Amino acid sequence: MTSLGMIEAAARRLAGHARRTPLLSSPLLDDIAGRPVFVKAESLQHTGSFKFRGAWNAISALEPAGVIAFSSGNHAQGVALSARRKGIPAVIIMPSDAPAIKIDNTRALGAEVVLYDRATEDRDEIGARLSSERGLTLIKPFDMAEVIAGQGTTGLEIAEQAAEAGLSEGDVYVPCGGGGLTSGIALALEDRVPGFTVHPCEPQGFDDVARSLVAGAIQRNNRLSGSICDAIITPQPGDLTWPVIQRLCGPGQVVSEDAALEAMALAHDHLKLVLEPGGAVALAAALKGAGDGPVIAVASGGNVDRAMMVRALSR
Amino acid sequence: MTSLGMIEAAARRLAGHARRTPLLSSPLLDDIAGRPVFVKAESLQHTGSFKFRGAWNAISALEPAGVIAFSSGNHAQGVALSARRKGIPAVIIMPSDAPAIKIDNTRALGAEVVLYDRATEDRDEIGARLSSERGLTLIKPFDMAEVIAGQGTTGLEIAEQAAEAGLSEGDVYVPCGGGGLTSGIALALEDRVPGFTVHPCEPQGFDDVARSLVAGAIQRNNRLSGSICDAIITPQPGDLTWPVIQRLCGPGQVVSEDAALEAMALAHDHLKLVLEPGGAVALAAALKGAGDGPVIAVASGGNVDRAMMVRALSR
Repeated sequence: MTSLGMIEAAARRLAGHARRTPLLSSPLLDDIAGRPVFVKAESLQHTGSFKFRGAWNAISALEPAGVIAFSSGNHAQGVALSARRKGIPAVIIMPSDAPAIKIDNTRALGAEVVLYDRATEDRDEIGARLSSERGLTLIKPFDMAEVIAGQGTTGLEIAEQAAEAGLSEGDVYVPCGGGGLTSGIALALEDRVPGFTVHPCEPQGFDDVARSLVAGAIQRNNRLSGSICDAIITPQPGDLTWPVIQRLCGPGQVVSEDAALEAMALAHDHLKLVLEPGGAVALAAALKGAGDGPVIAVASGGNVDRAMMVRALSR
Repeated sequence: MTSLGMIEAAARRLAGHARRTPLLSSPLLDDIAGRPVFVKAESLQHTGSFKFRGAWNAISALEPAGVIAFSSGNHAQGVALSARRKGIPAVIIMPSDAPAIKIDNTRALGAEVVLYDRATEDRDEIGARLSSERGLTLIKPFDMAEVIAGQGTTGLEIAEQAAEAGLSEGDVYVPCGGGGLTSGIALALEDRVPGFTVHPCEPQGFDDVARSLVAGAIQRNNRLSGSICDAIITPQPGDLTWPVIQRLCGPGQVVSEDAALEAMALAHDHLKLVLEPGGAVALAAALKGAGDGPVIAVASGGNVDRAMMVRALSR
C-alpha cells in the first residue's frame, strides 16, 4: 500500500530527474469557466506525460537488472526513457497492430519492442517467458505501490504551487484511467492540502470510476476501444488504486469527447499547451463551469498525433 | 543604457509575477539536430510571450499613472496585462485593420483599444494627444532601457537553468525583431555565462539584424509585411539594442518560413509546445544542425491562431 512516506521518498528520487511542471492559468479561461482555473501541465513532463514519474520511481526503488512492460502508449515511453537513463535494458510488449508512430517512438527511446499477434498469441505468456529468461522486472502501469508513489509526486508539487498561488480550498480534477495518478495525488493532498477535493475525470462511455464511486464497488467498462481518449481507457479501477479513490475522492466528472477536443483547442489558444484528448478531460470538466471556487485541472499528457490536433483545432 | 544591475533589479520586480519558464529538451530533437538542443519556453510566459517581462518591469520601475503603447501583437498583451495587475489604465493604439482576434484579446485583458486609419491618420499624433490629455506614459516595444532589462531576466534564468543542466559553453539562439530580447539576454549572459554566444535569428527577407552585423552598421528591411513571422518584423535594430548586439552577438541565423513551420510542428510533436512562427525561428535555426555543441533556442512566443497551427501540422 502506498503511503505518504513513499511519495516523499519518490520525490527525493525524482529530484533533478523529473521536471517540476508549471501550474499555469489564463484570465480568459477563468472567464469561460466562471471560476479560477489552474492547469498542472504534466504534458511538459519527460516523454510528454506523468508516466515518467512512476516509471522512474519504481525502477529507482526496485533497482532491477532490466524491466519489461505491456503498453502501447504513455507508460511505454516513461519506462523506456527511465530505463535508458538508468542504463538497464527495457522490453516493451506491444500488439503488432499498434500505431507505427508509437512503436517508433518507444524504439527511439532505446527500448526493445516485442510485437505479438493479439489473435494468436498470449501477451502474458510472452511476458512471463521473457522475464524468466532474461531476469526482467515487470513495471505495471498503475497497480503497483511504487508507481502510485511516483505519480503522487505530482500532488506534492500541486500543494506547493497552490500555496504560492494562495489556494487552500477547491477542487482538483484528474484524468483517470486505472487510477494511479488520481490515487497518488489524492494521498499527497490528503496530508498537504486537506481543503482540496480530488475528482477523477473520464470520457463518456468509459466512466468506470465515476460509476464505481456511485455504486460503492468496482464497476467495469462495457467496452475498451473506440475512444479518442485512449490513454485513459482501462477495464476497471485497480486493486490498489480503488480503495484510495473510494476513501478520498469526490464524485467523478464525465465529459464528452467533443468537450475534450474543445479543451484541447482552448489549451492551445490560451495556455500554449499541446494536450492529447485523454489528457484534456480534466480541463474539459473544469471549463464546464459547474462548481464554485478554484479548480486545479491536471493536464496529464500531450502525446497526440498531428491529425488529432488538427481535428481539435478545425472543429 | 541597460546595465546588468538593471536586469538584476528587474528580476527582483518580476519575482512572483512573471513565470520562470522551463528549459525543455527531447532526445528526439537532439537526434534531428545532431547536437543537444534546449528550448527556453517563453511561449508559456503570461500572455504567451516574453513581452510581459519588459512591460511589467517598465511599469514597475516608472510607476506611471497610466500607460500607452502602439502594438497589434504580443507587446500589446504584455502591456495590457501588466497594467491591469497594477491597477492602472492602459491605452493600446492599433490600426483599424488589425485582426479582430488581436483586438479582442487586448480588450479582454482590460486595455482600452484606440483604432486609427493607417491611410488617413497619424499614429504618433494620436498617441501624443492621448498621452498629454490623460497623463499616460509611453511603453516602447524594445528601445527603452527598462524594457530591455525586463527581457534580460530571461537570460538570468537561462544561466541558472544551464548550470543545472551542466552547460557552460554553447550557442544561444534568440528570435530577433527590434532586439530587446536579444540584447537583454546577451547582457545577462555576458556576465553569467561568458562561454555562451548569443545569435539573433530572423526569417529570410527580414534579416536586417544579420545584415547589420555583417555590414558593421544598421541596415533596414526592404519591406515590413508579408511574413508569417509578423511578431519579429521591425524596420531595423533599435538605437539602444543595436550597440549591444554589435558588441556581444555572434553571426545572425536566417531561416525560411518553411523551416519555421517545420519547427512549430516538431515543437508540437516532441515538446508539446504551441509556438507562433516568429517564436519558432530560433528552434528552426537550431534544428538545421549547423554548429557543434549544445544550443539553447529561445521560443519567444506562442500566440498563433488555429489556422496557422493547422497549416504547420498539415504540411
